[in-house]
Amino acid sequence: MAQLGKSLMDKMHAYWRAANYLSVGQIYLLDNPLLRQPLQREHIKPRLMGHWGTTPGLNFIYVHLNRVINARKQPMIYITGPGHGGPGLVANSWLEGSYSEIYPNVSQDYEGLRKLCKQFSFPGGIPSHVAPETPGSMHEGGELGYSVSHAYGAVFDNPELVAACVVGDGEAETGPLATSWHSNKFLNPLRDGVVLPILHLNGYKIANPTVLARLSTDELTKLFEGYGYKPHYVEIGKDPDDFAAIHRKMAATLDTVMDEIASIKARALREEKSGRPLSRPKWPMIILKTPKGWTGPKEIDGKKVEGYWRSHQVPFSDMTPGHIAALETWLKSYQPDELFTESGELRPDLAALAPRGELRMSANPHVHGLVSRDLKMPDFRDYAVAFDKPGNKVAEATRVMGKFLRDVMRDNMDAQNFRIFGPDETASNRWGDVLDASAKVWLADYKPEDETNDHLSTDGRVMEILSEHTCQGWLEGYLLTGRHGFFSCYEAFIHVIDSMFNQHAKWLKTTLDIPWRRPLPSLNYLLTSHVWRQDHNGFSHQDPGFLDHVVNKRAEVIRVYLPADANMLLVTTDHCLRSRHHVNVVVAGKQPALQYLTIDQAIKHCTKGVGIWDWASTDAGVEPDVVIACAGDVPTMEALAATDLLRQHFPDLKVRFVNVVDLMTLQPKSEHPHGLDDHEYESIFTTDKPVVFAFHGYPWLIHRLTYRRCGQENMHVRGYVEEGTTTTPFDMVVMNRVDRYTLAIDVIDRVEKLTRTGAHVRQAFEDKLIEHKSYIHTHGDDMPEIKNWAWPY
Amino acid sequence: MAQLGKSLMDKMHAYWRAANYLSVGQIYLLDNPLLRQPLQREHIKPRLMGHWGTTPGLNFIYVHLNRVINARKQPMIYITGPGHGGPGLVANSWLEGSYSEIYPNVSQDYEGLRKLCKQFSFPGGIPSHVAPETPGSMHEGGELGYSVSHAYGAVFDNPELVAACVVGDGEAETGPLATSWHSNKFLNPLRDGVVLPILHLNGYKIANPTVLARLSTDELTKLFEGYGYKPHYVEIGKDPDDFAAIHRKMAATLDTVMDEIASIKARALREEKSGRPLSRPKWPMIILKTPKGWTGPKEIDGKKVEGYWRSHQVPFSDMTPGHIAALETWLKSYQPDELFTESGELRPDLAALAPRGELRMSANPHVHGLVSRDLKMPDFRDYAVAFDKPGNKVAEATRVMGKFLRDVMRDNMDAQNFRIFGPDETASNRWGDVLDASAKVWLADYKPEDETNDHLSTDGRVMEILSEHTCQGWLEGYLLTGRHGFFSCYEAFIHVIDSMFNQHAKWLKTTLDIPWRRPLPSLNYLLTSHVWRQDHNGFSHQDPGFLDHVVNKRAEVIRVYLPADANMLLVTTDHCLRSRHHVNVVVAGKQPALQYLTIDQAIKHCTKGVGIWDWASTDAGVEPDVVIACAGDVPTMEALAATDLLRQHFPDLKVRFVNVVDLMTLQPKSEHPHGLDDHEYESIFTTDKPVVFAFHGYPWLIHRLTYRRCGQENMHVRGYVEEGTTTTPFDMVVMNRVDRYTLAIDVIDRVEKLTRTGAHVRQAFEDKLIEHKSYIHTHGDDMPEIKNWAWPY
Repeated sequence: MAQLGKSLMDKMHAYWRAANYLSVGQIYLLDNPLLRQPLQREHIKPRLMGHWGTTPGLNFIYVHLNRVINARKQPMIYITGPGHGGPGLVANSWLEGSYSEIYPNVSQDYEGLRKLCKQFSFPGGIPSHVAPETPGSMHEGGELGYSVSHAYGAVFDNPELVAACVVGDGEAETGPLATSWHSNKFLNPLRDGVVLPILHLNGYKIANPTVLARLSTDELTKLFEGYGYKPHYVEIGKDPDDFAAIHRKMAATLDTVMDEIASIKARALREEKSGRPLSRPKWPMIILKTPKGWTGPKEIDGKKVEGYWRSHQVPFSDMTPGHIAALETWLKSYQPDELFTESGELRPDLAALAPRGELRMSANPHVHGLVSRDLKMPDFRDYAVAFDKPGNKVAEATRVMGKFLRDVMRDNMDAQNFRIFGPDETASNRWGDVLDASAKVWLADYKPEDETNDHLSTDGRVMEILSEHTCQGWLEGYLLTGRHGFFSCYEAFIHVIDSMFNQHAKWLKTTLDIPWRRPLPSLNYLLTSHVWRQDHNGFSHQDPGFLDHVVNKRAEVIRVYLPADANMLLVTTDHCLRSRHHVNVVVAGKQPALQYLTIDQAIKHCTKGVGIWDWASTDAGVEPDVVIACAGDVPTMEALAATDLLRQHFPDLKVRFVNVVDLMTLQPKSEHPHGLDDHEYESIFTTDKPVVFAFHGYPWLIHRLTYRRCGQENMHVRGYVEEGTTTTPFDMVVMNRVDRYTLAIDVIDRVEKLTRTGAHVRQAFEDKLIEHKSYIHTHGDDMPEIKNWAWPY
Repeated sequence: MAQLGKSLMDKMHAYWRAANYLSVGQIYLLDNPLLRQPLQREHIKPRLMGHWGTTPGLNFIYVHLNRVINARKQPMIYITGPGHGGPGLVANSWLEGSYSEIYPNVSQDYEGLRKLCKQFSFPGGIPSHVAPETPGSMHEGGELGYSVSHAYGAVFDNPELVAACVVGDGEAETGPLATSWHSNKFLNPLRDGVVLPILHLNGYKIANPTVLARLSTDELTKLFEGYGYKPHYVEIGKDPDDFAAIHRKMAATLDTVMDEIASIKARALREEKSGRPLSRPKWPMIILKTPKGWTGPKEIDGKKVEGYWRSHQVPFSDMTPGHIAALETWLKSYQPDELFTESGELRPDLAALAPRGELRMSANPHVHGLVSRDLKMPDFRDYAVAFDKPGNKVAEATRVMGKFLRDVMRDNMDAQNFRIFGPDETASNRWGDVLDASAKVWLADYKPEDETNDHLSTDGRVMEILSEHTCQGWLEGYLLTGRHGFFSCYEAFIHVIDSMFNQHAKWLKTTLDIPWRRPLPSLNYLLTSHVWRQDHNGFSHQDPGFLDHVVNKRAEVIRVYLPADANMLLVTTDHCLRSRHHVNVVVAGKQPALQYLTIDQAIKHCTKGVGIWDWASTDAGVEPDVVIACAGDVPTMEALAATDLLRQHFPDLKVRFVNVVDLMTLQPKSEHPHGLDDHEYESIFTTDKPVVFAFHGYPWLIHRLTYRRCGQENMHVRGYVEEGTTTTPFDMVVMNRVDRYTLAIDVIDRVEKLTRTGAHVRQAFEDKLIEHKSYIHTHGDDMPEIKNWAWPY
């Protein structure tokens, strides 16, 4: 392999200096961006914000990747794990021109340089991180842990792409990151692109050494070999200023790993051609050891800074005359006069080092959502569950959904832009039919029994690993590069990715206002194995609170659906897969359950999101005495059964039955685009009648959504109140008092004419609850009249 | 080393069969527990719930650990990562007598056996998992990922204890588990006990092979050597029924690892005696490969069951006559007649294998919270911030708290029962003074610069790893074994452990009703680096929603505090450290901020949790025109500044100023024990006056807490509405409209006499907001009148 030539190396070194110079400039300089005047206090920002420590390493990697991209015409993207190295990525985008193309105001000249420096972490300017505003970013890196899973998500089905993924040694300590290394068991070397992890050990976090930087080389090597990688070390020597050595080492190593990648791809092609099974390659990775705050001040006030945690943020911010001089010395150490022209442009011979057009990592179309096509969608009506009358037929909603998804998968096989994700729950959540269209991807070892039964394949499009974090990270990476997916998860354990959801919702919210990014396919969740049916698992598996969590995020991007049967779920699924730039949370049961709406009724109902079910109501043409409302499959059944009980005992009672499928309709229109206007809301819920609401989740959520509605004081909500164990399905609703008897009692207690006359009925319902407890403790199962209940009208 | 003798081995094998028999019995049998009658449908439960697959492996490990405990008089605890192996752990507790001691109703006789079988996953019985109801459990294992961090937490400061930690190969795929292996860099071999991880590779999850079971032995070994362990393999051969071989192998391996542990401890002692630094040992671990559903049916209906994912839950549940016969055959394969006496007890020679008293893993006092003493507490008044008048002096609240915690640490050094935890944020969050009392524990490599500056030590009691999961897991393990701690975290990123919090809150809720467990020290969070002061980081670091998350859990165990200054934080901290069985969430800023209450005032105010600040109010002796309320440090300052503005412009306006420090006071007393009764609430907030509430978090939370309060329709809440970037502190409140000018405008808009006369003032406030934007875009910092504002009265 040819050694990096001196001339090219000198230019690369200069380019790196330019990026470092501009990084320091962004952190410190308000003006005088090329130090053409002696540095004064007024040239320096009043508030110094940002992170220097990781930045020079990020810039070093960037210039070296640029060489590889040019030499091999290799499309690459840059995933910045240490996202607070924002100044470095912004600097590189500016240097290669994409920044000024997107933001003409920040031009490639002296005035643009001034703005570039000033705007960073400055009011009205740009954020400190590799945020959505940063060209080339699809990963903000604000919260740590997701760089590797995002990188894998981005290269799935992008066989030409290499994602260089810089992982900070801080981030490497997080759980999500620690398991995401195993993503290599789910990557197909022919169909997918490549992730090139670059573990950047700069030794320190905010105020501590990092664990991985303090392992022996032997342990570190074994760890990554154990993860299935072939680590290549690039390490600064004793002298951090011996740049030539490390440039040569980095260039040679990148050549080596790119050659290894090419060999791996070639071998896979040979395997395929010869009909042999694809083997799992040992993908190369780089372990780069450079000092934190490299090229920055060695010491400040007699204290070590370069190569130490003190360079994590702004190495010095008290702008004494001595510190101003130190800053000037530091900035001048990059020799800006040699880097920029008189007019403030990067010197042309250096600018020539950057790739051109879409080969620039800051202009890769994948990361801006520009490579995205809609799904071909089969007609969901073809999967509808047919029945004679509502509330009699039983079906498993998610199994029906699975058949629909199977054909979404089948119809988009050519486009290679649809995958489904789940933490070992695809079968458990009744999506098993999808496996008829595409297997589960698996590149770890096979056993003889796998092929016939386990639907495992090296080219499957169903992604399963028992890590909600990794599933979420893969899916996010896949969506952020314009493709589509659905994530099914046990309802309780979706909380594992609460914080990842936060970050993605924030990304969507911010990108709404960024015109050069295209709207992304929505992040779709099916939450099933829900709180009411944890027959096998009990209390630890019961938590419907993800809904409460998501509704805190911006209304523009959040949608919550609670389809109560299979046909409603079909309509909802179709809608979710066609939508863009939302987070769609769908809660639906996987157990056999009653069916209520024909597909045509379901379309109408789901389109409106909330509505009166006339067939279950007895208030035709008149004001109701009470509104019985519900959301979610189990509460809907209990609410209907309560209606039935009331109809039997109080035939004159006027009940209006309301089902809510789109939870956001409850909010005022001013709060959410799906919110009903007040007139619509009141025409359904009335302004003065008691409303007894059976809700799938924590009852307070309904109050939070409706507290501004007229008549909210009449709203009585039942839901999950954190009671549960391993018991029967009906006992779960009884424990939380959202059962049919309690709901009927709630109505009796709230409708004046019943309160007066219904005491004996009320007592009979109370007695039923006692009978229920006694029955299940003896028989271990619900009473037949409960189990076999169907809508009798 | 002596080989396991045949006689002992035969007895151990019989003991194992007994545990397996009772496990199957619990899953299937309603009656006829010893099969003394031919098995009939009516002997079998109507609903078959539970998980068989992992259970025989858990039982196998259990009986082998019992031998070690007896042979070495070694106290051990058993952490069941695959917590759905509940039947196994319950069976073992019953076999060794602790179950009947705790639950006399489930006696050690035939009737007890019947109840033991029936109660499992049966209504009114016990849960399916290793739940709080299970003796010996401190880890339910419902949600996967935390077994190893819990185990480490349990052995910190318990030098005599060995925690055998069974990690399922499903769980091993989770992120939190994957990084928690690194806990060995934080364990001191002299001061702490030992975690013996037993990675149980049974090959399958619910419906998929596991990743770690499908690595080559070379990769697997390297992975764990890379993590710093010495793996020992115990593997079933080709014949899963060759029990003698694997008993011998397991026994020999356990002897080896226990000897290795003893050597490690001895070496550490030598190191200490000779004054050498403690080295980090390569702790042994076991990798146990046995078939999933081992000893269960090989096949059912022609389909592979043993050694396959089909044995995950209930291997067959459709109780056809053929299946009944298969169940009987399966049960009889354990030869129950050889295991149990006529009266239904375990045969005495087998019972003799179990350890005695507290050496039984199911009766270890640590895991039941029985080894717990209160902290010695210094007088928090000694750390009070003194000042002349409120709202003038500036202090950093968490730094003051840090000094108090330093002395809590110092005063409990002898008891060795206090630690603090943080993901690399102890210094950042201003708790640095704690390091004067105890360093950060660190057993990875040292560098010369560490000793002087970095407060690292092998015996530090400050735990820092950049994994919120690991911090939380360690702390939970520490608390569950009766010790005390505090976790400081960036507010936004505490969401990383939302789901772990859920599980711990559920554990606390359930154990409230378990008299044989002692109340545990509370789980204490300091959330700082909060939403309003992300000057360096911006939008990704802004999320106050953990409060919304926690309030969904049971009121009995949840507390939320928002102390607005250092003295309030001191009072709150003291309270939290003295409390038991709560989750205390404390939100407080780390930035320099105004101080309001003297320590005596703070005690009074925090004790009540909410109160009128007379010094800031102008309604003395009369009904107010408006209530200005606040919670949290930044909103309190803005609310006070708004009060100041209003006082300047409307000297006749009667303002009542209310601060809330205990958020739970807002809920009705019926919902939370801290809730004010209606009279108290109304005496503070009135029933008919406008309330303008400046809140730290998402504004809807205040509505959710107060929707039942009289006058709630007059409540106008400002808070974080998901707007933010890297900008100035005041601009953050302006972006979210919780700034002083907007609050003052809100008052003008709601107090009728101002609405009529205040238009010009209102306009002046609007103009101020425009002036602010213009100023910061030019100067990059807040206007001096904002930055330097102090309470002027």
